[in-house]
Amino acid sequence: MFVLGIDPGLSRCGYGVVTRRSGALAAVAGGVISTEPTMPLPDRLRTLSDELRALVAEFKPESVVVERVFFQVNARTAMATGQAAGVALVAAAESGCQVAQYTSNEVKQALVGYGSATKEQVQRMVASVLGLAEPPRPPDVADALALAACHLTAQPLRRALAAATRAEP
Amino acid sequence: MFVLGIDPGLSRCGYGVVTRRSGALAAVAGGVISTEPTMPLPDRLRTLSDELRALVAEFKPESVVVERVFFQVNARTAMATGQAAGVALVAAAESGCQVAQYTSNEVKQALVGYGSATKEQVQRMVASVLGLAEPPRPPDVADALALAACHLTAQPLRRALAAATRAEP
Repeated sequence: MFVLGIDPGLSRCGYGVVTRRSGALAAVAGGVISTEPTMPLPDRLRTLSDELRALVAEFKPESVVVERVFFQVNARTAMATGQAAGVALVAAAESGCQVAQYTSNEVKQALVGYGSATKEQVQRMVASVLGLAEPPRPPDVADALALAACHLTAQPLRRALAAATRAEP
Repeated sequence: MFVLGIDPGLSRCGYGVVTRRSGALAAVAGGVISTEPTMPLPDRLRTLSDELRALVAEFKPESVVVERVFFQVNARTAMATGQAAGVALVAAAESGCQVAQYTSNEVKQALVGYGSATKEQVQRMVASVLGLAEPPRPPDVADALALAACHLTAQPLRRALAAATRAEP
């Protein structure tokens, strides 16, 4: 079972594929989809859409996890990130697989234990959780792998919580 | 020759088709694509994507015009608008037709003559330009028709300007 994490971005969109092997999480693939800022915006978004669909077709993930972005300081960046996220969510929804979204804070909470963890702490924890000697590079890939790992660790917790809630008198 | 204007939005996405008949602009179609806020976000975006593709397939526009949104007060709205715009731009790019973007100010400038025109002034001008007795309703449709009309009026001006620039000594 593969989980595809996507750190949405227009210039750089990180992706990472994580699976569970004999109980432990393992990184299967990771990379960055880049689009040239000199290309017209519709063509950039279409390129991103095509590349993401190709990834979904290649790995046939059970779940696709796209970072949920609420706020960015720069309004232009927010718009570009929103556009990339929209394209990623449609590519995921079209494939028929489960689609999940977590905020950066939720990922930090799941992997490091507190939402205010630094980027470096998250990257070290991603390496640790995936059994890698070094944090994955570039950071876009680490962020995408963190999303996928967060989903795989959060799911059993949620099921246990749901079961415990149902079992309450 | 049809031009499809799109006023991107997640809950309500306005569209309008404009053509030029014997020199005058005319509205061919207009409507709103709505998605239910209770639906999961990926499904909402996919619905929007499917509906926009169906519109492009139906009208086979020469150009698709998507409003260029830079800034919104509410960051969550900005993200939703960005996502919808991204989906619209991909649907347009995939169809192979020309894709154009104008800001709200550029539309006002083209139709009313100044970028600080009120929404009501733009709507009255859209009605006038398209030979309609009343401003199109709802406002989402008027905005989408304004984008398409702006494109059709801006194109000859740009060509004339380009020709004049080339003709300069």
